Amino acid sequence: MSILRRDPVSLGWVIFPTDRPFRKEHAHEDDERDSPEQCPFCPGHEAETLPEISAYRPPGSGKDSAGWRVRTVPNKYALLRIEGKFDRRGEGLYDMMNAVGAHEVLIETPDHDARFHEYPVTTIEEIMRMARDRVKDLTLDTRFRYIQVFRNHRRRAGETMTHPTSQIIALPVVPRWVREEINQARDHYLQKERCIFCDIINQDTRGPRMICENEAFVALAPYASRFPYECWIYPKDHAHLFQSINDSGLTALADIMKTVFSALHAVLDDPAYNMIIHQAPAQPEKFYHDVRARVNDFYHWHIEVLPRVVRVSGFEYGTGFYVNPVLPETAAADYRGKIQILDESTGRLKAID
Amino acid sequence: MSILRRDPVSLGWVIFPTDRPFRKEHAHEDDERDSPEQCPFCPGHEAETLPEISAYRPPGSGKDSAGWRVRTVPNKYALLRIEGKFDRRGEGLYDMMNAVGAHEVLIETPDHDARFHEYPVTTIEEIMRMARDRVKDLTLDTRFRYIQVFRNHRRRAGETMTHPTSQIIALPVVPRWVREEINQARDHYLQKERCIFCDIINQDTRGPRMICENEAFVALAPYASRFPYECWIYPKDHAHLFQSINDSGLTALADIMKTVFSALHAVLDDPAYNMIIHQAPAQPEKFYHDVRARVNDFYHWHIEVLPRVVRVSGFEYGTGFYVNPVLPETAAADYRGKIQILDESTGRLKAID
Repeated sequence: MSILRRDPVSLGWVIFPTDRPFRKEHAHEDDERDSPEQCPFCPGHEAETLPEISAYRPPGSGKDSAGWRVRTVPNKYALLRIEGKFDRRGEGLYDMMNAVGAHEVLIETPDHDARFHEYPVTTIEEIMRMARDRVKDLTLDTRFRYIQVFRNHRRRAGETMTHPTSQIIALPVVPRWVREEINQARDHYLQKERCIFCDIINQDTRGPRMICENEAFVALAPYASRFPYECWIYPKDHAHLFQSINDSGLTALADIMKTVFSALHAVLDDPAYNMIIHQAPAQPEKFYHDVRARVNDFYHWHIEVLPRVVRVSGFEYGTGFYVNPVLPETAAADYRGKIQILDESTGRLKAID
Repeated sequence: MSILRRDPVSLGWVIFPTDRPFRKEHAHEDDERDSPEQCPFCPGHEAETLPEISAYRPPGSGKDSAGWRVRTVPNKYALLRIEGKFDRRGEGLYDMMNAVGAHEVLIETPDHDARFHEYPVTTIEEIMRMARDRVKDLTLDTRFRYIQVFRNHRRRAGETMTHPTSQIIALPVVPRWVREEINQARDHYLQKERCIFCDIINQDTRGPRMICENEAFVALAPYASRFPYECWIYPKDHAHLFQSINDSGLTALADIMKTVFSALHAVLDDPAYNMIIHQAPAQPEKFYHDVRARVNDFYHWHIEVLPRVVRVSGFEYGTGFYVNPVLPETAAADYRGKIQILDESTGRLKAID
């Protein structure tokens, strides 16, 4: 069972997964891959995972058998676990708690060697639908304060298994980045009665930092991008929760993700990256109470895509500054130069420029 | 000239060094080394650096010539530069400023292939003396709000040159980590009239998280260590500024650093790491004003050693949580098992256990 400890000065939480052996992960080369034969996420190996939580599969195909298109299972090496008493304690001047939560693996495809940017749009749509439905379900457990959906691509971005997956983690606390975003977005709202993310979308859509847009979403290179070619995908209409997305929203989201990830691949040649869904906390009333500004009004869910192609040094860890050699205006122009569209006749992508 | 941009939601600053070409740094293997022949920091190549700011050299040896033991030069590829107008501006809802500051390279030794943990204690003492004197000098420039001293070891920790160096950066703003530490330390002080770092030192010295101590310093594995084998070195007597260290303090600091880095090397076999000096802001009165709690009273300078042996994934970037597979109690015990002492007769290190 992991334990969670909080630093008394930074107030940051650290998870100590005490049931995992420590090995120097950097010993693994970045391009080292697992073989499909050894892969618990490949079809035919369903018995090697914990029993599935949910799967999209054809009628007649049985639970924990092959045939699925997208499948979610509990993580065998979970950072947080559903079972256990929810225990918060002090240790002298320190704070700790048991790591009660959930940690699920969303197996995106049966194809061990598939790559996200090559998925058909319909596959991306099913992955995001599965993510939405799992987040909805986990939100029903009122012990959980935040549901984090994320994806690690390549070892240097923290990928541990080759088979393409996303992960869903339900946390018993609201994490600090979300807390900070919420504090700042609330202050902006109290001052202007506007969502700060809507203001960003209004300022940057069709400007030099826009990567692409469709009817429901816009992809922007943020003004203060921390990473080269960082990209944030925003729903154009204000919404604080990812899980409120409807079916036509999922279609539009899959469409823009296909475009963004194809272009990212074309610009940086299959870079390592993290993809993270940021949304409002699961039980906002337990975290935050100010009747003048509700989380619904001032928080705006979005997806962050963080390419991991430069190294983080002691300067960044010492200060919290980031150093980024690529201006977002340059990044957005490079993306736009590679934006591809789906050729309806062949079903393949082609460049538009 | 770099520019600094601030994210309107996280309030984090990003430096865009617009005069550096972008290359995918991860293309470099971690063990790739520069040759001494090509190295601008090696003796005999003094003309390849910018003119030296300071050096410790024997009497009679001339500026920018060989013979130095420790030498500080301006960084040719500086993230921030001394020249230029100090310009803060808005861009719509965003904030930017010119990257006015300083970025110096502290060349620790003439020996291209030396390693920090193998330096004689007297070399470490001279390095820390040079760092102290440079910080003192930079603090006189009232445009600078924070002076950051740090060291990157190995490529994966952000090292760009093989020759052993530390770096000193003077910033025109107080960075967010320091701001957060100060806010929390102030709240603690207002509540208890005690320094929170002194409380940590009192709770953990001689406890299961202590690595080692001498008369003036203690090295602890922090209760909520973010990284495996993370180590913080604190002066036992309360002091808010690193640069206030006196000569006997430098001797004691060099002594404990030699012990910590020797043990770190013995435990993890020459791991990548960052070393960062955290101290109070340079012009605290421009940053902070509360007569009930002065920065001198509640901030406590310290050195953070962050081994970089596990990868950071989307979970960490999404939440601000860290995942650390090694409890600090285990890390401290492992360090203690390798603590070495200097054998006075041979001048070499020997294990005490």
